[in-house]
Formats: sequence, C-alpha cells, structure tokens
Amino acid sequence: MTTGARVRRPSHGPGSLLEVAVGEFITRGYDATSMEDLSRAAGITKSSFYHHFAGKEALLRAALERALDGLFSILDSEAARTGSPLHRLRHIVAGQVEVLVAELPYVTLLLRVRGNTETERWALERRREFDARVAALVRDAVEAGEIRTGVEPALAARLLSGLVNSVVEWARPGGSTTNLPAAVANAAFEGILPAP
Amino acid sequence: MTTGARVRRPSHGPGSLLEVAVGEFITRGYDATSMEDLSRAAGITKSSFYHHFAGKEALLRAALERALDGLFSILDSEAARTGSPLHRLRHIVAGQVEVLVAELPYVTLLLRVRGNTETERWALERRREFDARVAALVRDAVEAGEIRTGVEPALAARLLSGLVNSVVEWARPGGSTTNLPAAVANAAFEGILPAP
Repeated sequence: MTTGARVRRPSHGPGSLLEVAVGEFITRGYDATSMEDLSRAAGITKSSFYHHFAGKEALLRAALERALDGLFSILDSEAARTGSPLHRLRHIVAGQVEVLVAELPYVTLLLRVRGNTETERWALERRREFDARVAALVRDAVEAGEIRTGVEPALAARLLSGLVNSVVEWARPGGSTTNLPAAVANAAFEGILPAP
Repeated sequence: MTTGARVRRPSHGPGSLLEVAVGEFITRGYDATSMEDLSRAAGITKSSFYHHFAGKEALLRAALERALDGLFSILDSEAARTGSPLHRLRHIVAGQVEVLVAELPYVTLLLRVRGNTETERWALERRREFDARVAALVRDAVEAGEIRTGVEPALAARLLSGLVNSVVEWARPGGSTTNLPAAVANAAFEGILPAP
C-alpha cells in the first residue's frame, strides 16, 4: 500500500530477511529456529524466503560473514598495519568496539557460536585467526618493551578480547553518549579504574 | 563393585548429580535438556533422579544458587566491607575470579541465563543486585577521588564486570600457572597492556 518507503529499502529484500533471521537466532537460539519460524517472523511465505537464501545455514553464514568481514577489515586498515605494536593495538581495540556497535546483532551471534555445524566451526576458526593476529601483536608490544614487565602476553590477549567482546552484553545501537571506542581503549591500556 | 571410593563420595549423591546436570545444561542448553537426557548422562533411572531433585528447574536453581552464593560471599567478607572503596573493589575483583575458577561450570551456567523461566529471572535479578553493589562502590571510589578524572562510573562498572566474567570463556579448573585473581585485578586497575 505505502510503497513509497519501500523503493529505497525493500522490507523483504535479502538484507532485511537477514536482519530478521539474526534477531530470531539470538532470541530462540540457532538450533531451535526453523525456517517456518523465520518466514513467520519476516511475514512472508517459506518459498519467498528460499528465493533469497538456500536455507537456515546459508542465513547463518551470511550473518557471521558480515560480522567477520567487519572485524577483519580493521586489521587491513592503514593504522593497524603501520606504527608501533602498541599504537596498532590501540587502533584495533577501538575499531573492534566500533564494528561491534555498528554490527551489534551480527557480532552478538558470532560470539555465541559454539561449533555445532560446519558453518559455526568455520566461524570459530576465523575468530581464532583474528584473536591469534591480535595475540601476535601483543607479544610484539611486550618484546618491544612497550608493556610493563610482568604482563603475560597470552593472558593479556585473552583479557583484551574478553573486555572488548563484553560490550555486546549491554551495548545498544546508537545508544551511547560517551565515545565508547576511545573509552574502551583507555580502559584496556590505562585501566578500567586507573589511579589519578 | 569397587565401593571403597564411593564411601567417601557417593557418585550418585545430589552433589554429583548436580555436576552432571550442569555439564548437560552447558553442552545442550537448558531448554533442550530433558530429565531423560540427565538420567542417561548420570547413568541412573529417572525415578532415582527424582529422589534427589524435584525436576529440571530444581537442578537449575541449585546450580545457580551455588554460583550466586559464592559471589555474594565475597561481598560479605571483611576485606570487602572495610577500607577505601578502591581497596574493597580490588578485593572483590580478585575474589570474583577465585570463585569463577573454583565454581567454573556453575558460574558459566549463571552467565548464560537469559530469563526464560522463573528460576532464570530470579538468578538474573540476583546478578543485577551483585552488579549494582559493585557499581555503587565504583561510584564511591570516583567520588572519593581514587580514580582518574574522566572515568564514567557506570561504564567502568560494566567493563569491570565484562572483564572478570570473560574469564569463564577460557579458564580451566586448576589449569592456570599465573596467579589469575591478582593478574586480572592488575589488568582492571592498571591496564591489560600498561605502559612501562
């Protein structure tokens, strides 16, 4: 009826179907969501849904790809490839928070993946690859003497990833007034509760 | 047959049944786990299982209570109730990591609770209460001038909780060689990657 708005953003295109599916996967859990649930949530028939996506796992893969592409694009940026390891890390941490807020449902889904399907195992592998690249930079920063003595690189890399990813638990798209990426980077490098 | 060991720790007592159930809840998800799954995993009949626990939700409640009791006992300790807000917070953070490693499966389950049942909503409410008490201490520390200017108390409390809870993602019971509680407290107050 009101087709005006739909010209610019079709509400049943692959993009919005993906958005609906990710919402359902997060609420119900991927395993518990059927194509029937997805069609109902999107308000279209199952066959219209299959017109855009081969099935549930194709939707999962598209969603996880979106999150992973966002994260890996940070590593490819100029600031993440040049300068001292510490500066590169600071850029990466802030970039991760940016992507996490911009692609919140997709990253939330990525962080819940446990490896029950081939697609989930592929995503876990990619996550591990991302974490390994960050961990290598942490080691470089420690070896370059940019980090205080006594910091254990493997533990620091895990805590860094944990701190950043914890933001999905409470972040709301566009809901923050603070400069969240900078605040999380400060917390990582100077302390969440630094002394004056 | 070999009853000697069972005298000291009956393998089918309520404690070990709870352990088995928590393992299944974590692997399969609480909603997807049936009493049949639990009896099979414990190697006993359903009626023996019901002799110890009224049902699935009673098991969930006992498991979540164990995690919550551990966490709240930190707040009740002498060191968490006396001294400056910052010292109390440092004690609480280290204590949380201790409880988390000692009660790993129970805390893991607690952190996955989404509020689908009455028991889950009760546990979420208790978690919020714990977080609120820590957040109040963070505000006290900021107001007492113990924290660097510019740190936003509500954000700091969320990041603190996120950092600590992220440890469940990779901690193994007794698997750490570092002094993990102290290392996480250092990370929280001085930075995960502090400058020399």
